[in-house]
Amino acid sequence: MSSDKKLGGAGLRGQVAGQTALCTVGTQGSGLNYRGYDVDDLADNCIFEEVAHLILKGHLPTQAELDTYQAKLHGLRDLPEELKAGLELIPAGAHPMDVMRTGVSLLGNLEPETDFSQQADVVDRILSLLPAIVVYWYRFSHDGVRIDTNTGAATIGGHFLHMLHDKPASKLHEKVMNVSLILYAEHEFNASTFNGRVAASTLTDIHSVITGAIGTLRGPLHGGANEAAMEMIEQWSSPDEAEAAILEKLKNKELIMGFGHAVYKERDPRNAIIKKWSEALAKDVGDDVLFPVSVRVEAVMKREKNMFCNADFFHASAYNFMGIPTGLFTPIFVMSRVTGWAAHAFEQRANNRIIRPSAEYTGPEHRAVEPIDQR
Amino acid sequence: MSSDKKLGGAGLRGQVAGQTALCTVGTQGSGLNYRGYDVDDLADNCIFEEVAHLILKGHLPTQAELDTYQAKLHGLRDLPEELKAGLELIPAGAHPMDVMRTGVSLLGNLEPETDFSQQADVVDRILSLLPAIVVYWYRFSHDGVRIDTNTGAATIGGHFLHMLHDKPASKLHEKVMNVSLILYAEHEFNASTFNGRVAASTLTDIHSVITGAIGTLRGPLHGGANEAAMEMIEQWSSPDEAEAAILEKLKNKELIMGFGHAVYKERDPRNAIIKKWSEALAKDVGDDVLFPVSVRVEAVMKREKNMFCNADFFHASAYNFMGIPTGLFTPIFVMSRVTGWAAHAFEQRANNRIIRPSAEYTGPEHRAVEPIDQR
Repeated sequence: MSSDKKLGGAGLRGQVAGQTALCTVGTQGSGLNYRGYDVDDLADNCIFEEVAHLILKGHLPTQAELDTYQAKLHGLRDLPEELKAGLELIPAGAHPMDVMRTGVSLLGNLEPETDFSQQADVVDRILSLLPAIVVYWYRFSHDGVRIDTNTGAATIGGHFLHMLHDKPASKLHEKVMNVSLILYAEHEFNASTFNGRVAASTLTDIHSVITGAIGTLRGPLHGGANEAAMEMIEQWSSPDEAEAAILEKLKNKELIMGFGHAVYKERDPRNAIIKKWSEALAKDVGDDVLFPVSVRVEAVMKREKNMFCNADFFHASAYNFMGIPTGLFTPIFVMSRVTGWAAHAFEQRANNRIIRPSAEYTGPEHRAVEPIDQR
Repeated sequence: MSSDKKLGGAGLRGQVAGQTALCTVGTQGSGLNYRGYDVDDLADNCIFEEVAHLILKGHLPTQAELDTYQAKLHGLRDLPEELKAGLELIPAGAHPMDVMRTGVSLLGNLEPETDFSQQADVVDRILSLLPAIVVYWYRFSHDGVRIDTNTGAATIGGHFLHMLHDKPASKLHEKVMNVSLILYAEHEFNASTFNGRVAASTLTDIHSVITGAIGTLRGPLHGGANEAAMEMIEQWSSPDEAEAAILEKLKNKELIMGFGHAVYKERDPRNAIIKKWSEALAKDVGDDVLFPVSVRVEAVMKREKNMFCNADFFHASAYNFMGIPTGLFTPIFVMSRVTGWAAHAFEQRANNRIIRPSAEYTGPEHRAVEPIDQR
């Protein structure tokens, strides 16, 4: 409307669109804080379930609270039969993010949130089922097996790897999965979270919020950068080959995935953490190609363009060293970020006004409908 | 971030968040314009497929274009077998909007949009299938029958009624469905459309955009007002009983659904149109309760609170006169608004920047992680 206030930037960049107590990006400590804690402090000292408890329930758990929470999540790992049947309908060639989106949406029909008083339990159920949703479909459609989703794994990260590989994860792999899930858990008003808050502002159910957020994260400008980075680095067999290829790409003004960030200007605080663990995994697996290639790409991008790795770049090699298929990288992001999405929905519900901005009209002038034989 | 511009109102109300050539609300002509045409002019002179063509393809079709478009849509009415199987998994007690959301999401696995050059065809397919998705599930779960979705009905509105009632719709019913679908087709940056634009801004696929928008429309502050109005008015057996009940509700400060609007301040231009058709349906069916009750509620709300009916209020009686179950009211909204959602996604894709606002932080100060045994 013409009397409305016009915002300065496209994409609402730099515009405050609401309040949150969940996260700061680029203003405190090492650059990314969840409820006041540095993400690197959390990644060094916690398992993901402690961070999920922090984000969803407001504080880091005591040992007794953590034990109770993990036991609760373990008890929620059984997929409903109708959900298994639904996942079995989806072909092997489907986009794994479409499978996640559909799985959560179908779950909302089978176990609906009928009252907001159920929100914490409904989210714990989704949190517990997300790894099973994607791995059940993946293993059924690719390997023809119906997996048992009761692995007995202590953590969500270990549970995911156990279902994927049909054996318990090593201590190192479980640690890295915990670190990874912590790094991706929350990031203020990024596009998928803001999408979820818009949905939540109509007071819809939590499955709708999460379904929409998954579909938003699916976009190549948001999630998926670690998959694109993987597809790039796996082409090269040596650091020198990688360097030559990157220089050629830069000459052709191609986009290099896994570098730069919409909010961070000097560094992404998550990079140093995952890089360290990727290095540990490289040693563990005896890699002498992928990690050195990644390190060289980082150095070339710094030297040539003064650009830094974001959280996604060293995730590519780290996930690859753990035997995770590239198509499942972004679904891991979902398993983690669901905590942030849900906590933002809780915030929106607690102090809500429907999010309904205006638009600047750029279309045709007012006109009359012409009879169809005179058009 | 503290240096960011703070917006004036909660819910971005009155804030310009982007551009559109699709629609004006409250600034031109009778108050609601699609690409410059008054919504009442369109409702009087067009079928819904003409308006869908206007919104999706930019202009009102010639007769030849309309014939081609309708023939194309008719050819897209077959549900994929896997989609039927998926819908059969959903229990009769599910929320019909959850069924719509899941049906579109599952369709995205079976017939993915792999390139934006496919967007027009993918949307035509969704537009053509939405009535079948909800009615197939409804008739299977409630009546135990697997309907044939090839009805031969000329219009989407007639097709929906034919599948629901197992017989061709009357001319009057088909006309009212066309009017209704035209009235709900587009409404600028309402919450579901804005949700869709946020998703589209990550360059995700169109099924994700529509899936998220359905989940957003599902919220009681957005879609669903016509269902709530129906549940209210069907309680009363006479206008006097309705008046007494409304006065009591007003005394208790209860919300009366179907009145007022976030943008319109004096009248909703869609109300007079659907009211006229509800009256015609009342005469056709020999009603002497529901329409007079609705008219009295409108008069009492005007007299007591100076509040006007929005588009939803007389939709309740109109749909009821056509034998549509109340739970399917909001899904009809989806069958119509999918055109607006998709056209906004096309606009966003054509001139995109990822929608990523900032937030004002209200949480705890920076702090260190305490060891778990010291929390």
